[in-house]
Amino acid sequence: MNTLGSFTIQKLTGLSAFRTGMFRLLRSVSGITVAQIDVEVAKLLELKLRLGGDDVKHQFVLKTPKGTRDYNPKQMAIREKVFNTIVSCFKRHGAETIDTPVFELKETLTGKYGEDSKLIYDLKDQGGELLSLRYDLTVPFARYLAMNKISNIKRYHIAKVYRRDNPAMTRGRYREFYQCDFDIAGHYDPMIPDAECLRIVSEILGELDLGDFHIKVNDRRILDGMFAVCGVPDDKFRTICSTVDKLDKMCWEDVKNEMVKEKGLSEEAADMIGQYVSMQGGMDLAVRLLEDPKMSQSKQACAGLSDMKQLFSYLELFQVTDKVVFDLSLARGLDYYTGVIYEAMLGPPGATPPPPSQAGAPKAEESLSVGSVAGGGRYDGLVGMFDPKGRAVPCVGVSIGVERIFSILEQKAEAEKVRTTEVQVLVASAQKNLLEERLRLVTELWNAGIKAESMFKKNPKLLSQLQHCEESGIPLVAILGEQELKNGMVKLRTVATREEVDVSRADLIEEIRKRTSPV
Amino acid sequence: MNTLGSFTIQKLTGLSAFRTGMFRLLRSVSGITVAQIDVEVAKLLELKLRLGGDDVKHQFVLKTPKGTRDYNPKQMAIREKVFNTIVSCFKRHGAETIDTPVFELKETLTGKYGEDSKLIYDLKDQGGELLSLRYDLTVPFARYLAMNKISNIKRYHIAKVYRRDNPAMTRGRYREFYQCDFDIAGHYDPMIPDAECLRIVSEILGELDLGDFHIKVNDRRILDGMFAVCGVPDDKFRTICSTVDKLDKMCWEDVKNEMVKEKGLSEEAADMIGQYVSMQGGMDLAVRLLEDPKMSQSKQACAGLSDMKQLFSYLELFQVTDKVVFDLSLARGLDYYTGVIYEAMLGPPGATPPPPSQAGAPKAEESLSVGSVAGGGRYDGLVGMFDPKGRAVPCVGVSIGVERIFSILEQKAEAEKVRTTEVQVLVASAQKNLLEERLRLVTELWNAGIKAESMFKKNPKLLSQLQHCEESGIPLVAILGEQELKNGMVKLRTVATREEVDVSRADLIEEIRKRTSPV
Repeated sequence: MNTLGSFTIQKLTGLSAFRTGMFRLLRSVSGITVAQIDVEVAKLLELKLRLGGDDVKHQFVLKTPKGTRDYNPKQMAIREKVFNTIVSCFKRHGAETIDTPVFELKETLTGKYGEDSKLIYDLKDQGGELLSLRYDLTVPFARYLAMNKISNIKRYHIAKVYRRDNPAMTRGRYREFYQCDFDIAGHYDPMIPDAECLRIVSEILGELDLGDFHIKVNDRRILDGMFAVCGVPDDKFRTICSTVDKLDKMCWEDVKNEMVKEKGLSEEAADMIGQYVSMQGGMDLAVRLLEDPKMSQSKQACAGLSDMKQLFSYLELFQVTDKVVFDLSLARGLDYYTGVIYEAMLGPPGATPPPPSQAGAPKAEESLSVGSVAGGGRYDGLVGMFDPKGRAVPCVGVSIGVERIFSILEQKAEAEKVRTTEVQVLVASAQKNLLEERLRLVTELWNAGIKAESMFKKNPKLLSQLQHCEESGIPLVAILGEQELKNGMVKLRTVATREEVDVSRADLIEEIRKRTSPV
Repeated sequence: MNTLGSFTIQKLTGLSAFRTGMFRLLRSVSGITVAQIDVEVAKLLELKLRLGGDDVKHQFVLKTPKGTRDYNPKQMAIREKVFNTIVSCFKRHGAETIDTPVFELKETLTGKYGEDSKLIYDLKDQGGELLSLRYDLTVPFARYLAMNKISNIKRYHIAKVYRRDNPAMTRGRYREFYQCDFDIAGHYDPMIPDAECLRIVSEILGELDLGDFHIKVNDRRILDGMFAVCGVPDDKFRTICSTVDKLDKMCWEDVKNEMVKEKGLSEEAADMIGQYVSMQGGMDLAVRLLEDPKMSQSKQACAGLSDMKQLFSYLELFQVTDKVVFDLSLARGLDYYTGVIYEAMLGPPGATPPPPSQAGAPKAEESLSVGSVAGGGRYDGLVGMFDPKGRAVPCVGVSIGVERIFSILEQKAEAEKVRTTEVQVLVASAQKNLLEERLRLVTELWNAGIKAESMFKKNPKLLSQLQHCEESGIPLVAILGEQELKNGMVKLRTVATREEVDVSRADLIEEIRKRTSPV
């Protein structure tokens, strides 16, 4: 209401002008009585009341939609730095990039996300096709491959996706958020592309300087084989798997309880699972499990374990085994994974889940804030769902959780000064009436590719020009004065040190380049 | 239908398995007759027919929504180049960047686009707020300024916007398309930021190498003043203005006809307008019109003309007067412009509109394809529409029509080979069983920041490795063989010249850098 005060006043100001006019009109009519005037006044006051009432209804809200945010220049500077690091890495690994529309035909997304389909944003039916905002970049990628009959590609895609989820924005969970996906599609020898995806995660997280991190790996086939040898009935694989998936947020006791009491698993089977999912290791663990009397009975598990062994041999060549942990408790939710799965977490490996007493809802959410920052796996069946002939294109990929990374880096940068422009030099003047000379010089600098600006005032004070440099981190000021102009010189000031040197106009560009080139 | 053949076959394969099962079941029942079997077969065949019929209905369409497109890697490479050029220019001029959500509250967009509001994409009401996809970047920018009480900023924003328009995709007109906006908000001395916007358009179009171009400028106040002195009634300003706006597609005869016959303007007024709108020039024209006996009667026109004179004096300092034409026929449609307006066109200045006989609909559309590639102007009232206290923040900005630019550059690049990756070197092997050695070397290169890849096959043929380089434009191949490994050497092959040199492993990185650094 408060903000609307002036609106109402404006309307009433208009109204009183109207009233004055009315009075004049009324007076000009002969024989008008004071009573008649009173009647008119009463009518107008009523009108005033009604107008006031309307104002309250039409109060407009100045905000972004729920679960979304604007990025201000400082946030954009951080975002750009993160994207540059990620894209450089993707390019270093030979990736191309594609883009797809923000919305897809509704039927393209149908049947791909199971229960989560309710989180899809639909567009209003305004005549024409039924459309939905994309929910991830993987399904549009699979649609793209099938539509264009592409059977091998190494591509990245950075774009926003949309989920009508309950946002927890302080923790980097939004309804509109970026995904940074890298995927390798094609028929190749096993585990080579899978290993490269892990190398990429490792490079990116290392370069972003987020502190310690580790990547858990497992395999859908090892999980399924484990469930089989532990005596989980076939039709309970998926639901038991989704309970195991909670081990990063819940302690084993609670997970076991859910399996036995809610999902009707035998206690014996649950205990057996409990033994396996506590195992972590590297190639050695794969080797050991291949000889495990129970595990070795499952063909699926053996296939997964042999591939895991192979994977670790490649990871060793890629120099990332110190970051990767084979962890039998990792069970990513998505149905479409068919082989290797992985998830990167901040913190050192082996960080234990919070003890049962602290595992309530709010704590669980908090643990998310330092949790997963990348994830992915192999999905060999998805493209075939789109191909009219069901042709399969094997794929493996990784998605970097950049929103969470932005949150972390924003928090870190809160106290810091982050530059939001790249201006190298401000063209300033020490006296009045030098606007034209400033514009002439700034044009010279632009022509030479120097990032430069000059204030949009005819006669700005030197102090306010210098303050502008301090505030926006511009390192150099080229100061023009009558004297300098006469001598064909410019005073070049280094903002940080306040040191000033006279530079001839001919040498200025070279001098600016020298002083602002990255060390 | 054709593409569905295999689906039907798959379903029928499933069906025949079902039939076989049924037969077994039937046989196991004692006393079954051949007649009964025939009845069952008939039923099943009927079922088969019905299933086939259903298939036709459930045919799913593998396409992107109407008016949208995927960008393939080649298109993305062109897009990236264009964006880099544009962003470098924006940064050279000291701009920050922001981002806003792809959708806004519906009411934020309401009442901003007049008739075109029907082209806004609404989201389905799924409970919660009513949302619409953004229609441009200017209204979200104004909302952002008002919401954050920002009174001065120089910002750029590159993002997709959405219009349910009739797409003409061959001419770069889509329903989902990019806008690249640069705007300067704040109270400054007149025409300095306006001139910088024109300098920016000129830099960008020059650097994109699109051939000749020119920028038309005019001023909303000059237009309004001109209409007033020509005797256009106040309430016809907007509609006559929108007819004048068609002069780039229609000849003067047709424009005059529309004014007089459709919009009821006097022939005398129309002829007078006709004289003015044929005028083109530079600062001289502004000076002449300030002394024009009719024009000088309009205060508004004089204010606009004095500013135009001032603008050209700054444009001269910015060295772009050869690209800018003061053209009284320029009348951009948008209601929110309050001062200077401009539009950049490809081709030399003074390119005349097609003669009347050729001015039919298809020709008019064609002329669009070489038409406007940037446009903008001053809008001093828009932010005030969002500010609860109606505080005005004067703004001037420009929008680069990148989709049209993409189309032009794509056409140019059709015959050319455009690299879609940046790989500098392929690590290859000349003999079998060298996968591990290749992975070891490629890791060394990644560690050094070299963009490198190696094929995902255990034993790829040397020829297919070299072919991969030819196809994707990789300039160098590092070839490993038993002999090289023994001697600690690598054979470095330049793909273009087929020249090969032996390089010691220690010198390899330096050698690759030397050969791939930009000249």
